[in-house]
Amino acid sequence: MPDIRVVVVGPKFEGNVGAIARCMANFGVEDLVLVNPCEIGETAMNRSKHGDYILRNARTVTSMEEAVEGCLLVVGTSGTVTKGDKNYARIPVDVREFAMDCRGYNEKIAFVFGREDIGLLQTELNRCDVLITIPADDKYPVMNLSHSVGVILYEMFQANRRPVRCEPCDGREKELLFQFFGDLLEEIDYNEARRESTTVMFRRMMGRAIPTKYEYNTIMGVFGDAARIIRNYQESGTKWGGK
Amino acid sequence: MPDIRVVVVGPKFEGNVGAIARCMANFGVEDLVLVNPCEIGETAMNRSKHGDYILRNARTVTSMEEAVEGCLLVVGTSGTVTKGDKNYARIPVDVREFAMDCRGYNEKIAFVFGREDIGLLQTELNRCDVLITIPADDKYPVMNLSHSVGVILYEMFQANRRPVRCEPCDGREKELLFQFFGDLLEEIDYNEARRESTTVMFRRMMGRAIPTKYEYNTIMGVFGDAARIIRNYQESGTKWGGK
Repeated sequence: MPDIRVVVVGPKFEGNVGAIARCMANFGVEDLVLVNPCEIGETAMNRSKHGDYILRNARTVTSMEEAVEGCLLVVGTSGTVTKGDKNYARIPVDVREFAMDCRGYNEKIAFVFGREDIGLLQTELNRCDVLITIPADDKYPVMNLSHSVGVILYEMFQANRRPVRCEPCDGREKELLFQFFGDLLEEIDYNEARRESTTVMFRRMMGRAIPTKYEYNTIMGVFGDAARIIRNYQESGTKWGGK
Repeated sequence: MPDIRVVVVGPKFEGNVGAIARCMANFGVEDLVLVNPCEIGETAMNRSKHGDYILRNARTVTSMEEAVEGCLLVVGTSGTVTKGDKNYARIPVDVREFAMDCRGYNEKIAFVFGREDIGLLQTELNRCDVLITIPADDKYPVMNLSHSVGVILYEMFQANRRPVRCEPCDGREKELLFQFFGDLLEEIDYNEARRESTTVMFRRMMGRAIPTKYEYNTIMGVFGDAARIIRNYQESGTKWGGK
């Protein structure tokens, strides 16, 4: 995963800076650089929650040039997408596409975020090697500053992690489940003509759900118990309500 | 795209509710239902920005059951992921996976978000048909409430849109660009032995960049002009600095 630096140019509301620090902690990013920020006080600290250490370690500098020093790639962010393709400095790529493209990198990448009201200036955009955007509704595509940071770091995090899954049931266990289901149909004296199609339906439904070991075992327990109880009643000659 | 309802259960900070309304506007979602919320006043209105109409139209109800009425699917959200697979009510699927899976639906889906401190109660989780989570850093996976809403609506929006691209250059234009590049190498008397590998390198670099029509045309203009100027100088017998 690239080594990410978050650069915030001229933030006006410290609450946003605090929320940015929290988002960074949420996605394991720690390097925060502020360019000529507003005063960062208690409100920012409160909003940063467990990301407070990131806020405390943030560097403050006076120019964007200084902020991106040592970075291989400078990535600008913009909520305003240019429709034509001639204002070159304002043509962005989608954040997901960018995140996928730079999965192989281990180098430092700076993500530069602009002011709450006017974003990044043209000169600042021109310094960026890549411009990314978060696709959103045409009628109101401009997200809150810290929410943009959240989505972008989320995409970077997703592109670089392996999904965690509960262990699915193996094939042998699965067949046992279908066998238990078949036993249950047998015990309830299920309509012979529909038995096969119901069995297939159940198999397909389970196939779509890709259940875990625990789920298979639980359902199997239910079917097994039900079949056993019915059988016991029948064997003991007790009448049951069903027929 | 599914018809999305955002349900927020017991929010304690009106600022979060305002930020949620803004996120909803950002991703074209309008149906907001609040279950026993804190007072919603000016702070919420300010934070909602152009999403203020969503906040004004929000319904307030007194139970989650009432809030999800009329929805095909009730989707719970949780920042706390259970490691084992036995506490069934707390096993979530990743938000992206869920967003991709329900692309075909046009029905109403409720996304239910819990309180800022304790999230959704066990009884509320049990009422959910699906539980989704935003994968994040193990050390601090719990996002701010409105930021969670932002990421989840972003994923739903992404799963249901077509990417917009600038028109890429067509094959004929591209070959013309490579011809202009070759002309330039010729005019600058580029090292014969390296000419082929440099040409291939340039082709591959352009292949990776997938430039737009505008980009190809611009670069072609530069190469063409450079080659022409050098040729003119040479034809007029003027000495040039290069050799």
